[in-house]
Amino acid sequence: MRLAIGVDVGGTKVAGGVVDQYGRIIEKLKRSTPAASPRQTAEVISDVVIELLGRHAAEAVGIGAAGFVDESRSTVLFAPNLAWRDEPVQRQIEDRVGMPILVENDANAAVWAEALLGAARGHRDVMLITVGTGIGAGIIIDGELYRGRWGVAGEPGHYRVVPEGRLCGCGNRGCWEQYASGSALVAEAREFARRSPGAAVRLLQLGGGTPEGITGPKITLAAREGDEAALRCFGIVGRWLGEGLADLAAILDPSCFVIGGGVSDAGDLLVGPARMAFENGLPGRHYRQFAEIRLAELGADAGLIGAADLARRR
Amino acid sequence: MRLAIGVDVGGTKVAGGVVDQYGRIIEKLKRSTPAASPRQTAEVISDVVIELLGRHAAEAVGIGAAGFVDESRSTVLFAPNLAWRDEPVQRQIEDRVGMPILVENDANAAVWAEALLGAARGHRDVMLITVGTGIGAGIIIDGELYRGRWGVAGEPGHYRVVPEGRLCGCGNRGCWEQYASGSALVAEAREFARRSPGAAVRLLQLGGGTPEGITGPKITLAAREGDEAALRCFGIVGRWLGEGLADLAAILDPSCFVIGGGVSDAGDLLVGPARMAFENGLPGRHYRQFAEIRLAELGADAGLIGAADLARRR
Repeated sequence: MRLAIGVDVGGTKVAGGVVDQYGRIIEKLKRSTPAASPRQTAEVISDVVIELLGRHAAEAVGIGAAGFVDESRSTVLFAPNLAWRDEPVQRQIEDRVGMPILVENDANAAVWAEALLGAARGHRDVMLITVGTGIGAGIIIDGELYRGRWGVAGEPGHYRVVPEGRLCGCGNRGCWEQYASGSALVAEAREFARRSPGAAVRLLQLGGGTPEGITGPKITLAAREGDEAALRCFGIVGRWLGEGLADLAAILDPSCFVIGGGVSDAGDLLVGPARMAFENGLPGRHYRQFAEIRLAELGADAGLIGAADLARRR
Repeated sequence: MRLAIGVDVGGTKVAGGVVDQYGRIIEKLKRSTPAASPRQTAEVISDVVIELLGRHAAEAVGIGAAGFVDESRSTVLFAPNLAWRDEPVQRQIEDRVGMPILVENDANAAVWAEALLGAARGHRDVMLITVGTGIGAGIIIDGELYRGRWGVAGEPGHYRVVPEGRLCGCGNRGCWEQYASGSALVAEAREFARRSPGAAVRLLQLGGGTPEGITGPKITLAAREGDEAALRCFGIVGRWLGEGLADLAAILDPSCFVIGGGVSDAGDLLVGPARMAFENGLPGRHYRQFAEIRLAELGADAGLIGAADLARRR
């Protein structure tokens, strides 16, 4: 067995795993992310890798991090949900672990895993869109991971869908992730509950009586029960998602979009309206093929599996 | 000398040329495009090729056409300004000319020429944006022309920049080319002259006294003279252009944008405000490199030169 270690570093948790050459996870560890401290974040990642290396003869280590990774794949330039700014993450971890480390953007790692072993098997031009708190993305072009000239391609969460629109954490206004993410879903449901409490009885009930108590999983639960207010929220967010996919198809013409991230647990509640908006919005739709829109298959493990495989191949 | 023939097919003219291996044009012919007739358009292209072949021993023939070309590069699926719909252009011309023909999207051919011999020499990740009546685009990724899965990548003119925005010829609303093209520039100037004739004296004078007489070259002339109304129009359209480039950089992270098409004759009048809007709008701008924004260098010949070179390399 050829083993590699993959670590997925998000704003709240660090998940490390030992992965074999078929993408199977042999062992997995989780730790909280000390997101406010760059140094401690690197320490926790190193500790996870060292613990796993103690029990498994892994030949390579890959890190998937939620941030902009530079083209040499050694430095995290910027991470919206971590304190890393121009942080030499590769060197910091290599110094502690004592072996070479690959650093990759988490969505890049995830799209690699989905194309190799998941929802986009057999496709050579793939775009993964992770719908979570924000929107992340990874792009595969002609079977290869595409990073852009400086390593920061695949950030469509921050392309502008509404001029002078909602304020985004990146400092700009009108970014796609303000309309088509899990945060947008929750904001939509809370706003609806505030304005039309009578029509949002079930959502408010699940939220413990207040709009602020309504969360993503509760909206999904209500929508699965057939609650109209919850379905309306998925309809709105799904439409923004599909309209964005139409824009991306106009630019990149991939054969497959994979929808991942926490909100994709809602399945067709999200992807149904997205697919409809995509097919209605695609430019030249009467004269071209439609890309497939598929749900991710590897779930939260995609980043970890992809980071391990990319490290093994390097 | 290794010669190839390139033909650029637009909505109003067919331009054919004999090109040597250094991209120099040895001879050039122009004909009007009988755009309403698919059959006659193919005939005119064939006549141009046959005439040039009669005088030059060209080894390859490439056609750059303003339309969606399928992935096998034989059929024009759809062309907004030509009557071609699922038209087997390659076979029609090969039957008349008697040698293999390559069919390529015109902006794809043009970006190839600009990267090889023009404004983007030395760059491996390039996006050409042609600003004319509409917006066309060509993409080079890691030194190779990128066509997408079905051959129709690189149509950002039809990504949506304003929800429920201006109606586009493609049938959708809010497409980028309704805001950042030559048509948008002219519409802006005419609207301004209608609403504020007192402030648009020079534009109206150049337009023969009516808003309808104001054309792109006249707006450029007035702006070069320092006319504030004309400069305002370039400021607005240039800003939309630069904001769109910021979106494209968020998705693709190229090292160089090349701005071509008729409106690029205005030079810094267009690219100045575009560059400012790009740098202000780029997500993560404090933590990344800025792509260069350069004016095209090969002008109207880029498509012809690129089509010839692509055909020679095939």
